[in-house]
Amino acid sequence: MSDRPALADLERGTPFAERHIGPRPHELDTMLAAIGVSSLDELAAAAVPAGIRDQEPVASTLPPAASETEVLAQLRALAARNTVTVPMIGLGYAGTVTPAVIRRHVLENPAWYTAYTPYQPEISQGRLEALLTFQTMVADLTGLPVAGASLLDEATAAAEAMTLLRRAGKARSPRFVVDADTLPQTLDVLRTRAEPLGIELVVADLAEGLPEGELFGLLLSYPGASGAVRNPAALIEAAHERDALVAVAADLLALTLLTSPGELGADAAVGTTQRFGVPLGFGGPHAGYLSVHEKHARQLPGRLVGLSRDADGHPALRLALQTREQHIRREKATSNICTAQVLLAVVAACYAVHHGPDGLRRIAQRAHRMAAVLAAGLRAGGVEVVHGEFFDTVLARVPGRADAVADAAHTAGIALRRVDADTVGIACSEVTTVAHLEAVWTAFGVQADAGALDAATPDALPADLARTSEYLTHPVFHEHRSETSLMRWLRRLADADLALDRTMIPLGSCTMKLNAAVEMEPITWPEFANLHPFAPEADAAGTLELIADLERWLAELTGYAAVSLQPNAGSQGEFAGLLAIAAYHRSRGESHRDVCLIPASAHGTNAASAVMAGMRVVVVATAPTGDVDLDDLHAKIEEHRSSLAALMITYPSTHGVYEARVREVCDAVHAAGGQVYVDGANLNALVGLARPGAFGGDVSHLNLHKTFCIPHGGGGPGVGPVAVAEHLVPFLPGRGEVGAVSAAPHGSPGVLPISWAYLRLMGLDGLRRATLTAVAAANYVAARLREHYPVLYAGADGHVAHECILDLRAISKESGVTVDDVAKRLADYGIHAPTMSFPVAGTLMVEPTESEDLAEIDRFVDAMIGIRAEIERVAAGEWPVTDNPLRGAPHTAACIAEKWDHPYSREIAAYPRGGVPGVHDRKVWPPVRRIEGAYGDRNLVCSCPPVSAFSS
Amino acid sequence: MSDRPALADLERGTPFAERHIGPRPHELDTMLAAIGVSSLDELAAAAVPAGIRDQEPVASTLPPAASETEVLAQLRALAARNTVTVPMIGLGYAGTVTPAVIRRHVLENPAWYTAYTPYQPEISQGRLEALLTFQTMVADLTGLPVAGASLLDEATAAAEAMTLLRRAGKARSPRFVVDADTLPQTLDVLRTRAEPLGIELVVADLAEGLPEGELFGLLLSYPGASGAVRNPAALIEAAHERDALVAVAADLLALTLLTSPGELGADAAVGTTQRFGVPLGFGGPHAGYLSVHEKHARQLPGRLVGLSRDADGHPALRLALQTREQHIRREKATSNICTAQVLLAVVAACYAVHHGPDGLRRIAQRAHRMAAVLAAGLRAGGVEVVHGEFFDTVLARVPGRADAVADAAHTAGIALRRVDADTVGIACSEVTTVAHLEAVWTAFGVQADAGALDAATPDALPADLARTSEYLTHPVFHEHRSETSLMRWLRRLADADLALDRTMIPLGSCTMKLNAAVEMEPITWPEFANLHPFAPEADAAGTLELIADLERWLAELTGYAAVSLQPNAGSQGEFAGLLAIAAYHRSRGESHRDVCLIPASAHGTNAASAVMAGMRVVVVATAPTGDVDLDDLHAKIEEHRSSLAALMITYPSTHGVYEARVREVCDAVHAAGGQVYVDGANLNALVGLARPGAFGGDVSHLNLHKTFCIPHGGGGPGVGPVAVAEHLVPFLPGRGEVGAVSAAPHGSPGVLPISWAYLRLMGLDGLRRATLTAVAAANYVAARLREHYPVLYAGADGHVAHECILDLRAISKESGVTVDDVAKRLADYGIHAPTMSFPVAGTLMVEPTESEDLAEIDRFVDAMIGIRAEIERVAAGEWPVTDNPLRGAPHTAACIAEKWDHPYSREIAAYPRGGVPGVHDRKVWPPVRRIEGAYGDRNLVCSCPPVSAFSS
Repeated sequence: MSDRPALADLERGTPFAERHIGPRPHELDTMLAAIGVSSLDELAAAAVPAGIRDQEPVASTLPPAASETEVLAQLRALAARNTVTVPMIGLGYAGTVTPAVIRRHVLENPAWYTAYTPYQPEISQGRLEALLTFQTMVADLTGLPVAGASLLDEATAAAEAMTLLRRAGKARSPRFVVDADTLPQTLDVLRTRAEPLGIELVVADLAEGLPEGELFGLLLSYPGASGAVRNPAALIEAAHERDALVAVAADLLALTLLTSPGELGADAAVGTTQRFGVPLGFGGPHAGYLSVHEKHARQLPGRLVGLSRDADGHPALRLALQTREQHIRREKATSNICTAQVLLAVVAACYAVHHGPDGLRRIAQRAHRMAAVLAAGLRAGGVEVVHGEFFDTVLARVPGRADAVADAAHTAGIALRRVDADTVGIACSEVTTVAHLEAVWTAFGVQADAGALDAATPDALPADLARTSEYLTHPVFHEHRSETSLMRWLRRLADADLALDRTMIPLGSCTMKLNAAVEMEPITWPEFANLHPFAPEADAAGTLELIADLERWLAELTGYAAVSLQPNAGSQGEFAGLLAIAAYHRSRGESHRDVCLIPASAHGTNAASAVMAGMRVVVVATAPTGDVDLDDLHAKIEEHRSSLAALMITYPSTHGVYEARVREVCDAVHAAGGQVYVDGANLNALVGLARPGAFGGDVSHLNLHKTFCIPHGGGGPGVGPVAVAEHLVPFLPGRGEVGAVSAAPHGSPGVLPISWAYLRLMGLDGLRRATLTAVAAANYVAARLREHYPVLYAGADGHVAHECILDLRAISKESGVTVDDVAKRLADYGIHAPTMSFPVAGTLMVEPTESEDLAEIDRFVDAMIGIRAEIERVAAGEWPVTDNPLRGAPHTAACIAEKWDHPYSREIAAYPRGGVPGVHDRKVWPPVRRIEGAYGDRNLVCSCPPVSAFSS
Repeated sequence: MSDRPALADLERGTPFAERHIGPRPHELDTMLAAIGVSSLDELAAAAVPAGIRDQEPVASTLPPAASETEVLAQLRALAARNTVTVPMIGLGYAGTVTPAVIRRHVLENPAWYTAYTPYQPEISQGRLEALLTFQTMVADLTGLPVAGASLLDEATAAAEAMTLLRRAGKARSPRFVVDADTLPQTLDVLRTRAEPLGIELVVADLAEGLPEGELFGLLLSYPGASGAVRNPAALIEAAHERDALVAVAADLLALTLLTSPGELGADAAVGTTQRFGVPLGFGGPHAGYLSVHEKHARQLPGRLVGLSRDADGHPALRLALQTREQHIRREKATSNICTAQVLLAVVAACYAVHHGPDGLRRIAQRAHRMAAVLAAGLRAGGVEVVHGEFFDTVLARVPGRADAVADAAHTAGIALRRVDADTVGIACSEVTTVAHLEAVWTAFGVQADAGALDAATPDALPADLARTSEYLTHPVFHEHRSETSLMRWLRRLADADLALDRTMIPLGSCTMKLNAAVEMEPITWPEFANLHPFAPEADAAGTLELIADLERWLAELTGYAAVSLQPNAGSQGEFAGLLAIAAYHRSRGESHRDVCLIPASAHGTNAASAVMAGMRVVVVATAPTGDVDLDDLHAKIEEHRSSLAALMITYPSTHGVYEARVREVCDAVHAAGGQVYVDGANLNALVGLARPGAFGGDVSHLNLHKTFCIPHGGGGPGVGPVAVAEHLVPFLPGRGEVGAVSAAPHGSPGVLPISWAYLRLMGLDGLRRATLTAVAAANYVAARLREHYPVLYAGADGHVAHECILDLRAISKESGVTVDDVAKRLADYGIHAPTMSFPVAGTLMVEPTESEDLAEIDRFVDAMIGIRAEIERVAAGEWPVTDNPLRGAPHTAACIAEKWDHPYSREIAAYPRGGVPGVHDRKVWPPVRRIEGAYGDRNLVCSCPPVSAFSS
């Protein structure tokens, strides 16, 4: 019995790390042998420069790994410390019912939440269709025909609208006029975003008309933050007369009853779709929206889904007009936005599909009638109601009694908005009941009879704004109103896509790792899901503790002094980090420092963010090794010494290499008075091994949706915390020196339990092992594929970091087969393609992550080898370059069954040779063939086409 | 504003019934027009005989329909009234951790829970593979090579083993000897089942060996209910020497450490797989198991999955040896069991896949070491521990103090077993921690140091029983140990199957309706999921109230005096109902009444159940109209007047017709002193319209998994409540006069929130509308298909009830195309076939249910019309009868891509003409071609074959 495990060991059970990490020990041995090292520690020593490597685990308050059962129990205890009240605070966040059918089949379904951004549209038709439905919903309701596939929240959408109007309009004025009755968090973000761009923000009471003078744009609120509904038509006309463009921040639900912004002449509309079934989540994630007049389509920021056609001429969807975006236009992009809020946009679209136009109208009527009756009851009880015309929000004046009323309501389980000492706001919604009205009345010291008041009280909407135009007339908003039909529609869409639940998604720089069920479960618990962002702090005690834990752990893991979780996407984290640097320089009287050095290989977002933060971008060259060209760096530092604000580098580099001389780089920047921004996109190669804050970084943003297991959701939500060194702590967003970068104080707390759980489940040892396994996986891929495809860059000892770049340029030149051909051919194997042509055109960047086991990695490698053999046949002239299994890829089942006149067989088309698992035994058919992107950009269709378009 | 909806209406929101019911009002109009009626009420008047129809809604305590939000809130309130403690009661129910990955991807995944029984194996390969994994797991661990695909619970499995041993053995003795150390609920069910069959049950303390005399079988417990582990080898040998066969009730987890029953010479093993990750659920549902020696394979009751091959010679799975089953052998079947516990068997199999043999062994070691250390601590503290050798359960003697100890533990949040006033049982498990041991010691008034005791305490398992043989060596138990791999395996399996989330499943008599997400959510809440069935009543207050509500509502809806939810499958409900009738006759001194009249068209289960209840089956003929032949009925009643016990009829009939003269039938039986059993299989045609208890029934069983929305789970769980009139109430199971029919007092309470939620969401009005919509749907199918396929039977005014029979006999005769061909061809359309050849050979029985919208019903109808056109081409000689798209169906993608030498094109094979939606735009490919059942029965393989079997 001497080999008997100790009781304490038995109690501990199987560590979660063994579930998160793919390769079993014997598989890891195989991988290490292929790489030529004998252990993960040896790999660490060989691959990671000693100069940056932590010599022992960092001291940390992160507790040792806990079991799944323990972590769920801890999260339940945290959840129990939250107090969910009836949300009547308003301010852009409304009570809503997430239909259980949507919660289960979308929010809790890995086919939806583990999908990647639809950059491979042939295997993303499902979520593209859902997003097209979202766009159609927004376009219809706002009366503006081109709507994007979601933005991060209402406040940033308003900021994007501001810069869009500036780009799109004729006026050269720097003035942007904003309705004083705008949501305070929107005003806050507008201020943050306007300042570095030199936009002069004028917040004005528009009751008496536009302020005098020139302006390039105007933002109206419809209804206002106060609840008041005013007819914006005259202001829009006045602005247009001065050559200014107009955006309207509109409540989508109200638009089912009110004339749309488009019909009123607006150029753009912005807002949130939160109240379309998206949980409050203490502030997010929710999908913001932005729709514009046709003529501004090419000025839209963010993602836009459009209709195009595939190689067989069938309708097919893909991202449209990508040339607007930062990954192509870099500092000239319309925005730095990458991630959208796809999962939440899908929820909102499903909500509209579930309820249809009539259902939405009834829900709007409910909110409105509750408010109207509430107001009537208050008035009858002698309480002054400020506005006569409103949608769902009533402002009541109770001189000196606002706190007392709010407290009394809170005691009854209802959260109201304390506007000031004399004023209380009460917002009604889909969840408001007569019982709630009665409780509110009681809190005001009023008694009233809702039924009697209902009969006697007319609507409180301006009669001249009554909506007469139709909306949501497309069949999709009518055909899935039973749960059975909605469930099947969602399954059909999901089946069209390849997500992590069917294949590895080896995307360089995007870290598609396991999103464990145990991490995902808590986010739909009502205690986390149903908190209003402006609820009293005590009501959010559990979530606030979770946030504090997470910020502390992340700071320790990255070697920084503090972390802010406010940025709700990586791009926002970058922006916040650069703002901190700018504010730091300003605080030292060096506001002239405005040059941001960015390596040529950097992600385009870096440059776009720098521009948004008011900096000038100076590009640093790449050396033939792939590293930053140190000579050029020193030269550029010298050239811009006095105006140097920052250097942005990614570590390990975007080339997937641990650059050995990173400390030298940081030192040089610091010596010139600059700050070092370490982009955290590749943090999955560092956690537990090295800390950017310890090897020279002053600020980093992290991507919780890459390194810390928040799923990609098909293209969002993301969370992009910003981490800073001690001297930059005062400049974190929303702490006084720098304004807010997101609408909600804590960004998107609704998904933070995922990362919290991941850290608790892994512990420091597990995290370190995950990192090294990810590095081993990339090196294994490089080792196996090197003889078939050149691996472009490597670091010390010939190792890559957590990803590797396969260089197809010479192969393409010789054979005519492109990276596109290879990527699409992978779809015939049922495998998601790696990153294409970033950071180097003509290459594929592969990041297997630690979660893929050897069988899956080998499946990918074997597919790539099989493809290489097919390339050879093309190169040998056996198949023409224009007609071969690669150029023909992906192949649909339909094309296989049809007439066949290709020089390769149906069987080779559908079932590539080589015995790769999944090709025969779990074949997944792409729903469309290769999509022509340009056709759709020439013939822009961004809302649901008539059904006839699909009859072939 | 006069058309403004009232506030109360707006607050009510969209009724759930509009989500549950498929057709929109305008679709219903289309359907009614096709039928030739103008409203549902007119349809009711036309189709349902006035004599049985309720003239107004039945008085009911069922409240009016509530919204999804309200029902979730009510269920949360009920859940909050349960108190979940640490389960250390034992008695066959152990604490276990359901891995979140399994909870989310199986238990909460409609692809798994909405699937039907795999009678169409070509579109059921996924769950068949999961069940084969289950069978392999059970076979390996028990050392007996043929294991079924699950039974209802351990107690009924033991009862099935008892009758199996009787059938299989040579001994003619009626005596069955049972170890006195058997679980009390198993003893109870054995008594119930033995008595009507004339089996003499001898419960004996086997310490001194077998009792004298003959016996046909022996049941041993391993470990015993007391926790004691005794070597059964000698008893097995002794029994064999007397020509008796032996079954061992074994704890599967213990078998990872103990020599298997098979190795010890047992003929059969039974037990539960609950502790393999299946939630306690206050008693169920859990999957019971039964495995046997090869030579008894053909005696197995219930479902058995086996390997066979498809038309292309590829390996393919299907249900094996179906000729054993009651739907074929009727009263000569091995058992009356239909439904298994597939969903829970899948969970248990996944648990073994997730943990692998090493993981299971560690979990077993944990349970054992906790028990060993616990016992050592008690002994050291002066408490007498009864047994020296045990697995996970310790029996402690505390004279006069058992209540005090149990109470003290309960105060500390731990539930122990109070065996008697002097004895306490403590069961350890996967969830036991050292902290729990310490709390238990404290409850006993003992202090101990777990660490020190661990080091000093040897194992308490008999050394001669240490397991040396391997188990779970198949790759499936080793390849999916990371969560990513397990998730993908589950997705791959699910994708092979067609469940309700992709297609209607128009199964006559099986009522595959919507299983709404809101109904499903509560079942995985910990407060409902984690209750031990023998927890103190106060701890289950919420669940008990839910059970009481449900029993009351069901009694009211069916017109009976009382309902028992104990039967955990329809077959058990039948058995319980017949036992009640038999006991009633006995109570009146008429125990000679033993004839059960059963119409020829009845489901075979009726006959099998009657035999189990000790009755003689007499068949009543069917008239040419499809109704019961009243002349024959009267004649049979006359013939058996003095011995008439019961008539079993299904209403509406199994022919899908409301027989007009059912009251006359009931009266005739009553007049002869018999009781009327109304089989509730077709209750979906009655709820809210008519009540069997009001038109002549004395007893019915219901199927909550048919009419009341518990999903079929791929072939279970089912719940089969028995409902009885006032005079039969004392004879409900477990109420004194009749023993238990299931292991747990309330059957499977874990899934009862589903039906409770359904009734609360629908209200009486919604239920009535659902019923009439279901009837309309069936009549619409009949109206549209009548010109293509004769509709076999109809009732008054030519209407069918909620299902209709399409008669293919003449068509088959003329064309050679069989019902099989049609059913398999539907798979090419992505549609699940209707019921084949029941109740009439050569027909298809179609039940669309109320949840299918018009588009889906039309999809089915159009597919059937398309198939009819193909049949014509065969009949016309255009295609040979042996080689046409029907006989070739289903077609796999692989066969389309391969060499093609059929007289019909690939395109017609894969994409049948006719523009049926789903054929092109959401084509679902069957994973295998037509399966040869007989091949597999000749070459029985019932556990996972070596991987090489699949390499083609």
